[in-house]
Amino acid sequence: MSDKPPLAVALVHYPVLDRRGDRVTSAVTNLDLHDIARIACTYGVDSFYVVTPVAAQQELVAAILGHWREGHGAGYNPDRKDALARVQVVDSLDAACQDWEARCQRRIQPLLTGARCTDGLSFGEGRELLQRTPTLLVLGTGWGLAPEVFAQGWPMLTAICGVGDYNHLPVRAATAIILDRLLIGREVE
Amino acid sequence: MSDKPPLAVALVHYPVLDRRGDRVTSAVTNLDLHDIARIACTYGVDSFYVVTPVAAQQELVAAILGHWREGHGAGYNPDRKDALARVQVVDSLDAACQDWEARCQRRIQPLLTGARCTDGLSFGEGRELLQRTPTLLVLGTGWGLAPEVFAQGWPMLTAICGVGDYNHLPVRAATAIILDRLLIGREVE
Repeated sequence: MSDKPPLAVALVHYPVLDRRGDRVTSAVTNLDLHDIARIACTYGVDSFYVVTPVAAQQELVAAILGHWREGHGAGYNPDRKDALARVQVVDSLDAACQDWEARCQRRIQPLLTGARCTDGLSFGEGRELLQRTPTLLVLGTGWGLAPEVFAQGWPMLTAICGVGDYNHLPVRAATAIILDRLLIGREVE
Repeated sequence: MSDKPPLAVALVHYPVLDRRGDRVTSAVTNLDLHDIARIACTYGVDSFYVVTPVAAQQELVAAILGHWREGHGAGYNPDRKDALARVQVVDSLDAACQDWEARCQRRIQPLLTGARCTDGLSFGEGRELLQRTPTLLVLGTGWGLAPEVFAQGWPMLTAICGVGDYNHLPVRAATAIILDRLLIGREVE
């Protein structure tokens, strides 16, 4: 880890909402694992927590990680091995916070995201936060993080705004755009 | 289409390279269709061309589009219907250029992308290009566009640079980041 405070990403599968606004546990997808691990690796994110309380889903993640980190996939695609090296599966968002705090050896700040956040931190303010303190960027699957996550008093980022009203980015794409804005930001020319 | 020159995206499955540098036709994936259609919709991209010469793959795309645009999926998820409305499958990159030129009723400019482009247009220059002329943003699947595409004399964008040396973004993530940089760019605050 460099002098810059470390950054981790948490992809939450519970508690999240479904299309009807009901609280559900979403399924872990192989695709989110690979894509977000590769995106995290590109932007120097130190750790990627996959949050699910479901034992069968945790076993699925472990099997996928085993294949690419130690099994046939490790030799077939070493780049993928590098990306997936930073993935860790945990039971809950609290467990992700605790593990990340233990690894950073100082207080960490969760930073929430959501497509319906209209009055959160600007990306400029998010960049300042990342300069000050180790951060855990929290993304929800399904139709987004459940209200109790937002009730914790943690800061949230204002939603990505595209060109029109359409507001249904895949979480993989949102992760890529958010990390690019927070870590590369206005220096892009 | 607004006063701004229209923009289209082409996702090329031939001619592209594989991991060994051989020229291949890559397989169309359901995932790229959905993710890039949703990303394109978010950023107001007018058309999304899926380029493959393989008839069976073209039929697969048609079946997927039929399900979501007219079949059960259209009622189940109208947002997805909106996103997939802009997808069109074509035989070749030339066919995409010709169709896009016909739709724009003026000369269009292909703008190439690639993870190994080190001396292309900056994103600022790319933004200026998009202000001047209707553009077709061209992305390769697999290990990137084959050399003959770069030999056409079309401008190319400098590769996305993350924080370290890792240079293996999924094409879906690269599309999201490129569109965000080109269409939202430095105004993000």
